[in-house]
Amino acid sequence: MKGIKIFSPATVANLACGFDVIGLALDFPKDEIFLYKSNNPGIRINKIYGSPLPHDPRKNVAFVALQSLLKKYKQKQRFDETKIGFEIELIKNIHPGSGIGSSAASAAGIVYGANILLGNPFNTIQLIRFAMEGERIASGTAHADNVAPAIMGGVTLVRSYQPLDITRLHTPNELWISIIHPQIEVKTSDAREILKQKILMTDAIKQWGNVGALIAGLYQENYELISRSLEDVIVEPIRAMLIPAFYELKIKCKEIGALGGGISGSGPSVFMLSKGNQTAKKVTEIMNRVYSPLKVDYKTYTSPINQKGIKWIQLS
Amino acid sequence: MKGIKIFSPATVANLACGFDVIGLALDFPKDEIFLYKSNNPGIRINKIYGSPLPHDPRKNVAFVALQSLLKKYKQKQRFDETKIGFEIELIKNIHPGSGIGSSAASAAGIVYGANILLGNPFNTIQLIRFAMEGERIASGTAHADNVAPAIMGGVTLVRSYQPLDITRLHTPNELWISIIHPQIEVKTSDAREILKQKILMTDAIKQWGNVGALIAGLYQENYELISRSLEDVIVEPIRAMLIPAFYELKIKCKEIGALGGGISGSGPSVFMLSKGNQTAKKVTEIMNRVYSPLKVDYKTYTSPINQKGIKWIQLS
Repeated sequence: MKGIKIFSPATVANLACGFDVIGLALDFPKDEIFLYKSNNPGIRINKIYGSPLPHDPRKNVAFVALQSLLKKYKQKQRFDETKIGFEIELIKNIHPGSGIGSSAASAAGIVYGANILLGNPFNTIQLIRFAMEGERIASGTAHADNVAPAIMGGVTLVRSYQPLDITRLHTPNELWISIIHPQIEVKTSDAREILKQKILMTDAIKQWGNVGALIAGLYQENYELISRSLEDVIVEPIRAMLIPAFYELKIKCKEIGALGGGISGSGPSVFMLSKGNQTAKKVTEIMNRVYSPLKVDYKTYTSPINQKGIKWIQLS
Repeated sequence: MKGIKIFSPATVANLACGFDVIGLALDFPKDEIFLYKSNNPGIRINKIYGSPLPHDPRKNVAFVALQSLLKKYKQKQRFDETKIGFEIELIKNIHPGSGIGSSAASAAGIVYGANILLGNPFNTIQLIRFAMEGERIASGTAHADNVAPAIMGGVTLVRSYQPLDITRLHTPNELWISIIHPQIEVKTSDAREILKQKILMTDAIKQWGNVGALIAGLYQENYELISRSLEDVIVEPIRAMLIPAFYELKIKCKEIGALGGGISGSGPSVFMLSKGNQTAKKVTEIMNRVYSPLKVDYKTYTSPINQKGIKWIQLS
């Protein structure tokens, strides 16, 4: 096998109360990556469609992630590096800066695909580590809460970074998501800076009560409990101001039947979870209605939760 | 039915990372309560064995909890209060001040029993509320993290107090607990006072990552994940100084195979969870060995997790 096409999903990190620890994968939108192994040494990104991403490889997350994988592969296999190379074409359907894991999709997709073409020398946690190196280029920190759900699918929990400890959580099949991406710029670094370094103990206790209940709700498939737990008393009250009409959006989506939601990653996208396709579609419709009078371009998506993570097909 | 005997279990609150939210019930030790309904109006605590508890009813948690139930029952049933009364005998096997839910066992047991004798007019969450009124007398705050597992059994999560929202979590059958109760006094109010009102955001994130992983570990019956998650980076580092030889105890118990543990409630008892009876017994043995050279009286217990909560038998 020399070539594969990889479908790498959008992801939502900072799932309400699960700030910095809980993320999930979407079925749609997803990036498409054409990846070929060749005898021509080096990594070449030949084309990037749909986004003005840097062709300079050192600034490209896919390049950096794949390079990190190859570095380990060399140590492991002592392969003849003069005889192995990769050709890449990226179709970016996930808009960079949208807050739904655009860089993670590139980084996770490329290492996942390269692992297949090399005969699966690496396990899931190793692939997540390589992809995190791509995230470091994109946002300054090697976080895992987008790449983990992209690779593992479903809802994931990053318990710790030292050592890296990630768990795939039970994810009910009826869980759907609605996303609105207001096309404004929110820099991850700015979104980080406005957060407080110290928080009230009483708020922290509420937050971990909600994290616990959200995870119990997922395992019990108890949608009412999931709904009550989708509450962030620490980060959302500060970051909400970065998103136009955030509270109106949230209130109206819940009125129509959304379980709850919040800011996706560090924004500007906002997500809402629902039980079932029908409610999720109504929620997305409400998102459109709230945003259509505003002078802000936006896109909306409705998707089931992606249970499998990255998918791929053989090309040659 | 006029009389029942109630077995009300010891409980561990503040389960490591789950400070203020996660608790569990033990099979042993347990209080025994003889409760009789009579035509003689009023609540009479006739005997208390095993502890110098106040005979003054307004200072007795069982009295206050039962009174709170009866107040609601009056509003609900408009019963003839001149014709209903309760006679109580308490056998306190759970030492007051031990930190394993002594007051909760009295409060929860009495309302659970009275509900049966009255024909089950109240649901679980209502019983927890009445028992919490007893807890308010005992510790100054109407907390639920002991009475909830006493009544519901297993491991429980208090997501919120306003409104009261409590979930019974999946509890693996092989989970056992070892307890050491050093017979020193640690006042709950003192243990509260030394805590900080503000904590680092980075610590809080670690804590809710652990809470999430602990609950995922319980549902997955993944003992390694449970073990890695039994970590409290916020409260234990401050309160450990209240417990003689705390760190030695913890290190040696983990060396012998304990999954992990921490301070039970606000101390002085220390708990350790293990997979299976055999390991739990070894852990308790190590607890004895660490404490036997110290000039502190102590008691140890080994128990499975109590899956059912309060149990009872009919007397007449």
